[in-house]
This record gives sequence, structure tokens and C-alpha cells, in this order.
Amino acid sequence: MAASSEEINFVWKMWFPIIINMFMSITAYVVTVKLIPKLKEMFIKANLFGIDMSKRTSEKVPEAMGVVSGCMFLITMFLFIPVPFATFLLEGHFAHNEFVELISALLSICCMLLLGFADDVLDLRWRHKLLCPTIASLPLLMVYFINFNSTTIIIPKPLREMLGFSVNMGILYYVYMGMLAVFCTNAINILAGVNGLEVGQSLIIAISIAIFNVIELSSGQWKAHQFSLYFMLPYIATSFALFKHNWYPAEVFVGDTFCYLSGMTFAVVGILGHFSKTTLLFFIPQVFNFLYSIPQLFHLVPCPRHRLPKFNSKTDKLQISTTSFKYSQMNIGGRMFVNLFRTLHLIQWHEKNDYVLTNNFTLINLVLLIFGPLHEAKLATVLIIIQILCTCLAFMIRYPLAYLFYDI
Amino acid sequence: MAASSEEINFVWKMWFPIIINMFMSITAYVVTVKLIPKLKEMFIKANLFGIDMSKRTSEKVPEAMGVVSGCMFLITMFLFIPVPFATFLLEGHFAHNEFVELISALLSICCMLLLGFADDVLDLRWRHKLLCPTIASLPLLMVYFINFNSTTIIIPKPLREMLGFSVNMGILYYVYMGMLAVFCTNAINILAGVNGLEVGQSLIIAISIAIFNVIELSSGQWKAHQFSLYFMLPYIATSFALFKHNWYPAEVFVGDTFCYLSGMTFAVVGILGHFSKTTLLFFIPQVFNFLYSIPQLFHLVPCPRHRLPKFNSKTDKLQISTTSFKYSQMNIGGRMFVNLFRTLHLIQWHEKNDYVLTNNFTLINLVLLIFGPLHEAKLATVLIIIQILCTCLAFMIRYPLAYLFYDI
Repeated sequence: MAASSEEINFVWKMWFPIIINMFMSITAYVVTVKLIPKLKEMFIKANLFGIDMSKRTSEKVPEAMGVVSGCMFLITMFLFIPVPFATFLLEGHFAHNEFVELISALLSICCMLLLGFADDVLDLRWRHKLLCPTIASLPLLMVYFINFNSTTIIIPKPLREMLGFSVNMGILYYVYMGMLAVFCTNAINILAGVNGLEVGQSLIIAISIAIFNVIELSSGQWKAHQFSLYFMLPYIATSFALFKHNWYPAEVFVGDTFCYLSGMTFAVVGILGHFSKTTLLFFIPQVFNFLYSIPQLFHLVPCPRHRLPKFNSKTDKLQISTTSFKYSQMNIGGRMFVNLFRTLHLIQWHEKNDYVLTNNFTLINLVLLIFGPLHEAKLATVLIIIQILCTCLAFMIRYPLAYLFYDI
Repeated sequence: MAASSEEINFVWKMWFPIIINMFMSITAYVVTVKLIPKLKEMFIKANLFGIDMSKRTSEKVPEAMGVVSGCMFLITMFLFIPVPFATFLLEGHFAHNEFVELISALLSICCMLLLGFADDVLDLRWRHKLLCPTIASLPLLMVYFINFNSTTIIIPKPLREMLGFSVNMGILYYVYMGMLAVFCTNAINILAGVNGLEVGQSLIIAISIAIFNVIELSSGQWKAHQFSLYFMLPYIATSFALFKHNWYPAEVFVGDTFCYLSGMTFAVVGILGHFSKTTLLFFIPQVFNFLYSIPQLFHLVPCPRHRLPKFNSKTDKLQISTTSFKYSQMNIGGRMFVNLFRTLHLIQWHEKNDYVLTNNFTLINLVLLIFGPLHEAKLATVLIIIQILCTCLAFMIRYPLAYLFYDI
């Protein structure tokens, strides 16, 4: 049976822009991977460098290189802008809504790249790290307000007797979206410090989102997922170029710039593609790391300035970093968390007189606690495998289990 | 006679968003003027500082502060986004075209701010200075392509017999728009080096555009001019805050960031408001400075690394800076320019044997050549007065003289 011309038209409309995007992404990869080494000197001259604490040498490693992959990502997207809309122009009607979404998503990402780079250069304070993503998500929220202003959420089945089928969240939905951007950017930023880890985890998340998008292309919501793919493919391409230079032994560091850019990109496609809950599902290791870090982040227990694993230059391996304090320095909240973590065997804990010696509460240290000291490349590999396994779990939750909670 | 409700409605639609914008701009001014001194230390720590060559002291002056006023400008615009469209939402129909224009204009400006800041931090090369505005104007051009794609220009009356009433420029029009962005950003950047001058001239240009917009609000094209005012008011407010700290003796330098941001903002409103020729009219001193600089910029005559006026620490005044080279080092183009400039008495010229001593070809040096050595604040004042006089000239050309060339 021959496919009808309508079917062909539909397949064309769905895949043509994606295929163009794919070719542009490949080009962007090739350019970025060659560009990064050329710019290394320029960054070091500009005082944008760090010393790798987990190496025997103490060479200057250029920092904030995420701005290069980020700019290449943006340029690719700029050049791509007319592609999805050219077909509509030929047909005579034009999808203004989608166009505005594309531009405003780029505005939010560009703004985040600017603020991330400013953070790397100026070394902003913690409160700015929360403020920046909020500012950068403003255009997105404004566009959401004007374009959709749909703040109704579907209630999961078990709660429907209590809350009804759906609830209009009103302004709370905007708070949720703003917080999503803040969470995504910072969650990646605090699971960091090992060569290749920031980019590695972001790549897995991006690939997971892209796979999810491809699956959903056959659904009624295919437009939203096509839209998301437009961003994910060039993001994956340019980040992969960065990954090649950031993997052990890192020639370049990615900086807060990259974490901000990545978090914002994921938040943007999640919000505008209406799959923010699924996006969060791909953040399981980051969510765990955040929850695990809470006692130290919010100073419920004393927190040292750096929580990176400790480098043992004799064995060339990384081992857990520890912190020591008086038991009495913990407040009630800290004690509750510590008791919970000890019950779950999530931390190492030695008490002597009033003094406590424990590991820093990060996922990286937990991995080292379980596997023992690891070589840096192996540690990053283990963490990325965990990210991949969590993506599998996320797909399990999203597909078979979701049927229990929603009518899909 | 009472005004009809339609008239009231019209006045409301025209002025309500502008008045809100004005109040937001005043707030932005107050915040920015207080914020800048607080961030000075942070910039110096980040190695972003310069030494003022025209002062007796050699204090570190924070550089690239334009990023602060630029970010405040963007934040103000982000918060303003819903205002002009809220009224349309109430009426039930929504001006998608205008909305896309607003967002894409912000995208271009944000992108330019990022690239300008990257330039200040990384000290990009000359070819990047041409590349950056081109990249940043991409989203604008793409949106223009999709939204209007009107590349027809009206021919001035005297040429109509030859060329007809109008000509479709096609792709050349896009080249023109891209070059406008490149020209605006760099033209401000090369008329610089005196405390308060970069911001001062930009403020005069911005105020001129705003006055032009207010005049044109009563024309049929009022929407385009209302749109331009949305940008000009917060731009003027935040730049004026910067001006207060950059005026002699400068506490902060504005950096390429500011010049890029300003040039792009003017190009954006000129292009989207369809008054790019009028915008260029407000750049008379910059155009003159560019033409005057051509022999040195394009190395037709030997060009020293810096062309800033020379500081005389005894008199605390600035005097012309000179350059010396062999007559034979000039090529044919250089000789033609030099002969023209000498005929017009635009340069000082001393020849001895084969050696030549002349001033550097900048408007600043020309002013010093005419008025003699001046105190820095006085020099900046003279240059700003020239800018104001040129604005008056521009209005003369735009209104009384334009009738000779166009049917308006």
C-alpha cells in the first residue's frame, strides 16, 4: 500500500527540520572540537585558569571553557532559526507561537550564558547563584505567561478523590518553573570536581531527553518534542566537543558557565515542551546528591570550604575527603540527618571523645566510600554509569509505572 | 468638545506602556547608580581593571562596568515584557509580530552583551570585533527575514528617473543591516579614551533617537516608534547611572562591553523601527571620526598602537598625540588621504628630510588641534557639545531637507 501524500507531507514536516538540525550539529561539533585548543592560551592570559588539584603536576588549566561550547551552541541555533519556519512560509501560514517560544528559549539560554560567564570571571557570591537563573528564566516565564498562561496540572489518580482531576496552580506554577531553572543549574554545579563529570552527566541527561523526545514524536504532542530536539542535538554536539577536552586528564575546565548553560537548556525544553516532570526524572543522581548534601549546604553540620575528594599523589587515586568537628557543633536538624544517614549506611562515622570524623556528604564521596579509592578516570566512569542506570530507572518510572497514576 | 472614547482608548494604548516603562527606567537608574560602586572591588579582584593614563595617580580603575548597566537594562526589559501585551490580552487579540520583535531584539542585545564582556575579559582580536556584532545580529536578521522580509527601499526623488520609485535590494539589504550593527558597535568604540566620552556620546544618540520617536508618535508609524522608546528609556536610565561614575575623574571604565551594547541597541531599534537611515544621521561625529581614521585604521599610513591624546602631568591637560614615520612608508592611498586632509587643514604636518611628524587622525586630536590643550573634563564636554550640535544638524536634514528627496 502506498503512503498517501498527506502522510508523506507529515513525515516531511516532522523530520526535515530535525535532519537539517542534525547536520548543523555535526558541523558545530567539528568546529568546536578544533576551536577549544586554539583558545586555551587566550583564557590563561585572561587569568581564567585553575590548577587541577587531583594531578601530580600543577599546570595552569584554562577555566570557563563552557562559554566556547555555549557560544557555538547559540550560533548553531541562530543559524537554524529559519529552517523550521521556512516550510510554513511556503504553506502560507506561520506558527507564531512556536517562533516566539524558540526565540525566548534562546534568550533565556543566552542570558544564562552571560551570567554564568560573569560568575566565572567575577566569582559571584552564593546568593547570586540563586538570583542569576531566576533572572535568566524571566523572559521564559514572561513568554509562558503571554503565550499559554496554562497553570493547570493533572492530579495523579490516587489523589483525585481528594483534589479532583486537575488543579489550577496559578502563580505557584510560575514559582515552580522559576525554581526548576534554579534547581537544574545548581544541581549540576554541585555534582562536580572530577574531570569530565560535569559534561558527562549533562550529556547523559541530554541524550536521555533526546531519546524521550524521539519516542514521543509518535504521540499527539510531537511538536513539543520536535522543538526540544532542536535544542538537544546541537547541545549534545557542542558539549561532546567540550567533553573530549575535559575528560581525564582535563586540558580545559568547563566552569560554572557550562553548568548554568546546561541546567537552563534542560529547564527550557522541559517547561516549553510541557515535560518538566520527566526532565526532573533524569536528574535522579543530582536530586540524590542535593538531598545528601543538604546538612552541609545549609550548615546543619559544619561544612568545610571544599568537599572535593582527596588526591593521593602516591597511588594516583582519589579517596574520600573527610571533615572533623565537635559533636556539639551540630544542631538538632543536623543530628536528625546524621542519624538517618548512619542508619542507611550512607556515611562513614567515627566518634572519639566529643570529636567526630566523617566524610563530606557528596555522591562522589559516597561512591568512593563504596568502591574504595579510585583512579580519577574510573571514578568519573562509575559516576556516569550511575547516571545512565538512573536514566533507565527514569524510563521505567515514566512508562510502565506512569500508567498507575495517569490515564495515558 | 469632549474626546471620543476611541480617542481616549488610542491615547491610552500609546502612552500607558511608555509611562510604565518610564517609571521602571527611573527605578533601574536608582538601583544601577547604587550598585556600581558596590561592585568595584569585585571587578578589580577579577583582574578587570585599567590604569587611567590621563591622571597623575595610577590607581586601579575597574574596567568593563558596562556589563552592570547592560544587565540592569536587560532585567528592566525582561520585567517590562508583559506590559505592552497585557492590554492586548484584555482586548482578546494579540500582536504576535511585535512580541517576536521585542524578544528577538532582546536576544541580539543580550548576545552582544555576552560577546562584549567576553571581549573585555579575553581581549579578542580585531577580526573578532567584526565577527561578534555579525553573530549577535543574526537572530535579528533571521526574525526580520521571517517577520517582514521586506527588502524594498524607496529611491530619493532625484534618482527616480534613473532607478524608478523603489528597488528591491534582496540579500543586499541583509548585508546592509548586518553592517549597520558592525558599524554602530565599532564607531562608538573608536571614539573613546576620554573619561565620560563613550557613555556621553551614546547618551546623546539615545536621547536624539528618543526625541525623534516622540515626534513620530503622531505619525502613522507610531507603533514602531513606541517600540523604540521601550528600549531607549531604560537604556538612557541605566547608561546615565554609568555616566555618573564614568565622568571625570572616572571611578569606573565602561569597556568594550558598553560600546557593543550601545551600538547594538541603536542598530536594533533602527532596523526594527524602520528608521535605520535616521539612526545613522545621529552618528555624524562617529562617521566623521571613522572616515578621518581610515588612513590609520587600514594602515595606509603607519599607525601607532595607541592614538589617545597625550597627558601632560605638569599642566594637568591633554594635548594632541603625534606619530612620526618616514614619508616613503606611506602608500599611494595614504598619500591621497594625507593631501586631502592637509588641503582641508584637518591635520598638523611637519616634514624634515624624509621624516614626517603628524597628529593621530582621531576626532579627539582634531578638537585638541583646534582648541589647544584642554583639561580632560573640558575636552569631553566639547566633544559632547559637538555631538549635540550634530544631532541638531541631523534633525535639520531629517525634517526640512528630506522633503526635497522624499514625498513626506
